[in-house]
Amino acid sequence: MFEKILYPTDFSDVSKKALDYLAQLKDAGTKEIVVLHVIDEKGINAISRYGSGSAQTVIGRIEEEAREEGKKIEKKLGQSGLTVKVRIEVGVPLKEILKVEEEEKVSAIVIGSHGKTNLEEMFLGSVSEKVMRLSKKPVMVIKR
Amino acid sequence: MFEKILYPTDFSDVSKKALDYLAQLKDAGTKEIVVLHVIDEKGINAISRYGSGSAQTVIGRIEEEAREEGKKIEKKLGQSGLTVKVRIEVGVPLKEILKVEEEEKVSAIVIGSHGKTNLEEMFLGSVSEKVMRLSKKPVMVIKR
Repeated sequence: MFEKILYPTDFSDVSKKALDYLAQLKDAGTKEIVVLHVIDEKGINAISRYGSGSAQTVIGRIEEEAREEGKKIEKKLGQSGLTVKVRIEVGVPLKEILKVEEEEKVSAIVIGSHGKTNLEEMFLGSVSEKVMRLSKKPVMVIKR
Repeated sequence: MFEKILYPTDFSDVSKKALDYLAQLKDAGTKEIVVLHVIDEKGINAISRYGSGSAQTVIGRIEEEAREEGKKIEKKLGQSGLTVKVRIEVGVPLKEILKVEEEEKVSAIVIGSHGKTNLEEMFLGSVSEKVMRLSKKPVMVIKR
């Protein structure tokens, strides 16, 4: 029922709050956590347009940073005895989350209520809300 | 972390699906479930306007039915070794849910994704979505 959990994260503070809940769910049968970080392609395009370097170099740098963050989470969850898989994807966050949900055949999703892109989410609704609406599996939303 | 859970229900099928998840959460430390059913005052007003009998009689009848349903849930969750408290309230569902969340000092909310009033929710957003947005506690939404 909670065996394999998808944990989409943008590495924000509220998202990291979810880690304690994930560790707790181990007692309810959770064995594996799929940590998913999506590098928003919209951001990439903006940076490569106005910054220096091609989109590829930008992605490379951001990906490296994401892998570092991912490793920290992997270590923390691993200490609770959970099997952890980290996936870094580039694309539209909502789409990637729903894609990985299918691919990994997860039993539930645990996600922070708001990401780093707070202002945009105030107008368009948070990614978590959309995940909640469109996911086929139970979604647990962790609040600030 | 999951010690006391608020479970708002309109007794719909998707809402009842949540019962299995609640039972499973016992292993993650859940001890008590507050089952909350809100009799929507909007519905009451409509019935008493067009039906026979005063609003009070209508509420009385609906309340009795709700208590019956509540007892069934209490029995089912009780079999899993959980302490259960059933509350039947009359009012606006969202408001009552948030009020009881405060009053009962729950640690999390488990709720079905859609209620019985599907058509209205398609346009205005589901009660669960609003609970997810406004609750201060983690919200787990169970899907169809």
